[in-house]
Amino acid sequence: MSMEAVTHAVNVRLGDDRNSVVILDQTLLPNETRYLTLSTAEELWQAIYLLQVRGAPAIGIFAGYSMAVLARNIEAEDFASFRAEYFRLSAYLNSSRPTAVNLAHMLKRMEKVVDAHSEAPRAELIEALFTEAKAIHDEDIAMCRKISEYGLSLLKDGDGVITHCNAGPIATSRYGTAQGPFYLAKEKGMDIHVFVDETRPLLQGARLTSYELTKAGVDCTLICDNMASIVMKQGKVQAVFFGCDRIARNGDVANKIGSSGLAVLAHYYGIPVYSLGPSTTIDFNCPSGDHIPIEERPHSEIKELFYEKPMALPETKCYNPAFDVTDHTLLTGIVTERGIAYAPFEESFRKLFPEEMAK
Amino acid sequence: MSMEAVTHAVNVRLGDDRNSVVILDQTLLPNETRYLTLSTAEELWQAIYLLQVRGAPAIGIFAGYSMAVLARNIEAEDFASFRAEYFRLSAYLNSSRPTAVNLAHMLKRMEKVVDAHSEAPRAELIEALFTEAKAIHDEDIAMCRKISEYGLSLLKDGDGVITHCNAGPIATSRYGTAQGPFYLAKEKGMDIHVFVDETRPLLQGARLTSYELTKAGVDCTLICDNMASIVMKQGKVQAVFFGCDRIARNGDVANKIGSSGLAVLAHYYGIPVYSLGPSTTIDFNCPSGDHIPIEERPHSEIKELFYEKPMALPETKCYNPAFDVTDHTLLTGIVTERGIAYAPFEESFRKLFPEEMAK
Repeated sequence: MSMEAVTHAVNVRLGDDRNSVVILDQTLLPNETRYLTLSTAEELWQAIYLLQVRGAPAIGIFAGYSMAVLARNIEAEDFASFRAEYFRLSAYLNSSRPTAVNLAHMLKRMEKVVDAHSEAPRAELIEALFTEAKAIHDEDIAMCRKISEYGLSLLKDGDGVITHCNAGPIATSRYGTAQGPFYLAKEKGMDIHVFVDETRPLLQGARLTSYELTKAGVDCTLICDNMASIVMKQGKVQAVFFGCDRIARNGDVANKIGSSGLAVLAHYYGIPVYSLGPSTTIDFNCPSGDHIPIEERPHSEIKELFYEKPMALPETKCYNPAFDVTDHTLLTGIVTERGIAYAPFEESFRKLFPEEMAK
Repeated sequence: MSMEAVTHAVNVRLGDDRNSVVILDQTLLPNETRYLTLSTAEELWQAIYLLQVRGAPAIGIFAGYSMAVLARNIEAEDFASFRAEYFRLSAYLNSSRPTAVNLAHMLKRMEKVVDAHSEAPRAELIEALFTEAKAIHDEDIAMCRKISEYGLSLLKDGDGVITHCNAGPIATSRYGTAQGPFYLAKEKGMDIHVFVDETRPLLQGARLTSYELTKAGVDCTLICDNMASIVMKQGKVQAVFFGCDRIARNGDVANKIGSSGLAVLAHYYGIPVYSLGPSTTIDFNCPSGDHIPIEERPHSEIKELFYEKPMALPETKCYNPAFDVTDHTLLTGIVTERGIAYAPFEESFRKLFPEEMAK
């Protein structure tokens, strides 16, 4: 597989019949490459909940296409009842994962299209939804490219970088966000070594990130999450790059569980920490990380999933938060498509996002 | 299963025929309780290497019985050739795991018995080896009890403690070392909540510690290693207790991979960190952690073990250190059967172990 095959793989697209959304099932990698064709609201909801499609940007793109497809099949006499059903379906899809704000953001963006077409013929409204979904997808490609370029500007030849979870091509469009700079570095002939946290419990690092990087020929080493301290201590790591699912106004970043621990370790060893993601991940209504809801997931993910046999007793208590919040004091910078925000983050956000912060 | 059944289970013992060592196969827990009867040097070596028997104290006990059994079967005309073969077998067993010093320590202790009987009849020498092996075992029981009592003195009713890997009954004798205080607390009716790191890659926390604690009725919650940061941040943890495989003179502690990261997190959140283990774990010849060899284990443990299907590509590079060194500056105390050492550790060790430190 070539680098191009990795960065240009289409993992979320509208079905040819415009009546379905087609995704690469991320839960089967690295062992099986299977595409799913989804049409009903329940199938679409499940795909997000089960992480068959995952990564905040990919979920956003998926949500756009999903709502266009669902809207097309709404049977309603008038706009009011169409709108009621559309908003019900949108809220339902939004309930699939509570932490990432990108999903809510893109669903809201699609809802605005509905409201802007209250007087228009139904066919025109539906067409506008498909156009908006396509725009979300196209914008993501451009956004990921910008983020990757800003991210790469923070690295120099020979650097080692540690990354967590997956925010590569499969979770976004093209290069990805947190892992985008590594593909760009490879294209430019730079020598970057990537340490990939396996990312328990669902192993997105092992199954997806190390898969994508290895296939693209990017030099990488897979480690268990608890080995990060030691590779940092050995001087092999010059930066930490991870994605983000929601960023508060003060710069607190919610991302895959384990990100905050990684940031604490880097802080201790004097290594800079960057969170990379689209500005749609910033929740301008959220004052701090304390206000970000953290999804708790089934205990079977810790005790059973992927294993031939259970690894703990059925009666053993578990705690399985899917995300954690990294305090802004632990972050060196937040990389977005509009530029890199540094501490104090609220001030930095005001410069990069004057309109949004003024709201 | 009762508390007593857990703390008094015999996981390593001499075979009834005195021609074998019987162990509980730790790799099959929590799904299967199978005992192995081992006799040849290769079988005994493999049992340590494959972690069928593990935990520094249990390996020490196992090594004692193993050498007595092996010595019994040495065919040699005179003492010199007996000694040569004995020392060869001892060195072979010692090569099974390089990091833990307890194995080397107990093997040396048994070697001294051989040298002390150079003039004695062979039968008497062999008998002395069996006696010494039994003494190692008995001393471990007393030692674990002392360590558990010292450890418990650091906790108060209602405390949450986070622990890593397994240093409970199965890895030691009776109560265990790092997890001993939890069983003792339960006996005394104290309310202690234990967070158990699953401990990747071999999941000793999930498979063994949470198994033992749950069976004994100790309140515990299993988490993935990368969730430690968040339970600490939530204020649920008042202390970190982990074991040790080798302690340097300056207090640097080598223990299961992930311990150093846990200590850094605790340091950041202002939580005290204790390493608990027998004084035989202190390597008085080792000036600092930099001199402790760290075992690297097969990549299949990260990529394949316990899984139905591989979690990463066969060609993906891996790094799989079995241990890491926690800097003494991150440790609040080191709990041994002779008392608790505090910083500065060399000074503290000199008070607790004046003879050993003077060497």
